[in-house]
Amino acid sequence: MRVLILGGDGYLGWPTALSLSKRGHDVHIIDNYSRRKLSEVLNLQPLVTQPDLNARIELWENVSGNKISCGLGDVTDYEYLLEQVRNFQPDSVIHYAEQPSAPYSMLGYHEARYTLTNNLISTLNLIYVVKEVNSAIHIVKLGTMGEYGTPDIDIEEGFIDIEHKGRKDRFLFPRQAGSLYHTTKIQDTDLLYFYVRVWGLCVTDLMQGPVYGMFTEEMFAEHGLETFFSYDEIFGTVLNRFFVQAVIDMPLMVYGNGGQTRGFLNIKDTMQCIELALLNPPNPGKLSIYNQFTEIFSVKELASIVQKTAIDFGLKARIEHIPNPRIESEQHYYNPDNSSFKKLGLIPHLLDEKFIIQMFEYVFKHKNKISRKIIKPSTVWS
Amino acid sequence: MRVLILGGDGYLGWPTALSLSKRGHDVHIIDNYSRRKLSEVLNLQPLVTQPDLNARIELWENVSGNKISCGLGDVTDYEYLLEQVRNFQPDSVIHYAEQPSAPYSMLGYHEARYTLTNNLISTLNLIYVVKEVNSAIHIVKLGTMGEYGTPDIDIEEGFIDIEHKGRKDRFLFPRQAGSLYHTTKIQDTDLLYFYVRVWGLCVTDLMQGPVYGMFTEEMFAEHGLETFFSYDEIFGTVLNRFFVQAVIDMPLMVYGNGGQTRGFLNIKDTMQCIELALLNPPNPGKLSIYNQFTEIFSVKELASIVQKTAIDFGLKARIEHIPNPRIESEQHYYNPDNSSFKKLGLIPHLLDEKFIIQMFEYVFKHKNKISRKIIKPSTVWS
Repeated sequence: MRVLILGGDGYLGWPTALSLSKRGHDVHIIDNYSRRKLSEVLNLQPLVTQPDLNARIELWENVSGNKISCGLGDVTDYEYLLEQVRNFQPDSVIHYAEQPSAPYSMLGYHEARYTLTNNLISTLNLIYVVKEVNSAIHIVKLGTMGEYGTPDIDIEEGFIDIEHKGRKDRFLFPRQAGSLYHTTKIQDTDLLYFYVRVWGLCVTDLMQGPVYGMFTEEMFAEHGLETFFSYDEIFGTVLNRFFVQAVIDMPLMVYGNGGQTRGFLNIKDTMQCIELALLNPPNPGKLSIYNQFTEIFSVKELASIVQKTAIDFGLKARIEHIPNPRIESEQHYYNPDNSSFKKLGLIPHLLDEKFIIQMFEYVFKHKNKISRKIIKPSTVWS
Repeated sequence: MRVLILGGDGYLGWPTALSLSKRGHDVHIIDNYSRRKLSEVLNLQPLVTQPDLNARIELWENVSGNKISCGLGDVTDYEYLLEQVRNFQPDSVIHYAEQPSAPYSMLGYHEARYTLTNNLISTLNLIYVVKEVNSAIHIVKLGTMGEYGTPDIDIEEGFIDIEHKGRKDRFLFPRQAGSLYHTTKIQDTDLLYFYVRVWGLCVTDLMQGPVYGMFTEEMFAEHGLETFFSYDEIFGTVLNRFFVQAVIDMPLMVYGNGGQTRGFLNIKDTMQCIELALLNPPNPGKLSIYNQFTEIFSVKELASIVQKTAIDFGLKARIEHIPNPRIESEQHYYNPDNSSFKKLGLIPHLLDEKFIIQMFEYVFKHKNKISRKIIKPSTVWS
């Protein structure tokens, strides 16, 4: 299969490129380095600096014998994206090319406008380019479980049957996000749902939970193939922060009471889900929505899990509850469905001690590169 | 009350300015003439050319003794909007400053991108400016009944209680629009709903049906105070096209079988609804959504109503069903609630013969200005 990856230099984009290349697909990447540039501007670098895209691709070719091609450009530039898609003629496009950070989108006006414009125009461009070049191209779009928020009813996979005053219909599951970033993902779904219906496009919208981990099968082949490990307050995720905090003897900082509950998954399972989505496109004119996570944890449960192994390593890993910089429920019902990917064949990698140890080993190895001052939250929602 | 009207030169913006000024409110208008410019570029002029904003305002001052101030600028320019709001210090802002045409948004990529960017950035800017200047300012935003689409259940006013698998919660009523323009209004609602919740803003989102008519109380005072009468395929509305078609002896063109059913209202009732909304702001942190229409008609019913009076005028007014350029249901359930405005005191002006005669008289008076070739639809959804 010919697969175009938009945002293929990112935390998930790069491992996806490797994984699909390894599994025999032809991969072409487009990236504008926006994630690297934003980190640079804000001085929030990942723990380890990774080679640029061309260097990574060359390393991969040396290791695997497989070629990946790439274009360094911006998918919000319509003419550029059109030319790239025309030249590569993909069967599928995976769209990761969005500003990915909720706290970034709440920093201020400039960041909100950038997030809104980048995320929606990239999606609109992809829709128009696919219509122009070949409307049978399968679009696999990364959404987020955060689109649903934390409703007081069970979360279905994308759609819900509503019975109301004696009549029935099927609708997009109601959406209510907790950050501007998450809101732009709702708006992406609005856009895709509209054009799928009027133009008969073929789209899979993946409601992904927070992803943890960084090691996929391909990355062990060669140093330099690693993805980014971010632990700062803007681009880092909660588990990464906990590992780093434990290693440098900071308390594990839990936002508020830590009852915030989400569906998580290992990056290896993102790889599986993406390939399963590629291999199971919906019929034209139908929007497929899958919930993409494997296990549900609250933030305080994650803190306890990390703490347990940390103590075995002889670390203190005291848990500290700090004022929540976000506006969100800290105690809520959460029961989302995730049966679709299991039915398609997903075999989950669960959050076990072996994984925790592996992550600790990685952070210990790079302990000298840790910057303490970028961890504590300074971005507040209000 | 100090009221800022964004898009105050438009079909509804201008009559709103007059109506509020007449009723003793201090009115400031911002407009960038985008509606006039788009008509010019596409060569789709309204039936009668209206004076520019400064001339209109001067006429109004001569007639009424009331001053209206204005700024000619673009609300997608954040610094400009910030300065205007800081200087005027409004109690309320009415946001009409959006690209208002569904067919325009479906013309092609350029028009889609313009609609998406203009409509969402204007809304984002207003949100940020209000937060910056005074978060108690009441935002009255014009949405559309088209956000709901044509679901097979009763349409509530903005929100719906869903009982699902033994649990209950309250959500935004599910949205599914029929054009990109309507989709941007859904996305506006997504944005407003988010910022209302995190920042405690005070927002009323009006789900308005198609508006007909052009005469408000104030317009009779002086020629030159009229609003735009558009009858072309892009900016015109269905009733206006029927009047013009009857007068120039074209058949009344019904798209498809004409079973498309919507909630309509007279422009005089838009004026009432806007003032009722201004006088009844929600509490901070609550999004009020009202459905704004007075009567429900199908397109073929409207054609019959116009035909009946046309025949009395000695016109042929043959009804012709033409292939539907849009992708939409032509036969569907439609039962939207509109009780909120009635409870607040709205006294509807219904679509009666007197109104139809008044519109025919207007079109007859300007018969020589009609351009036949701009009426027939050439913009297709697919």
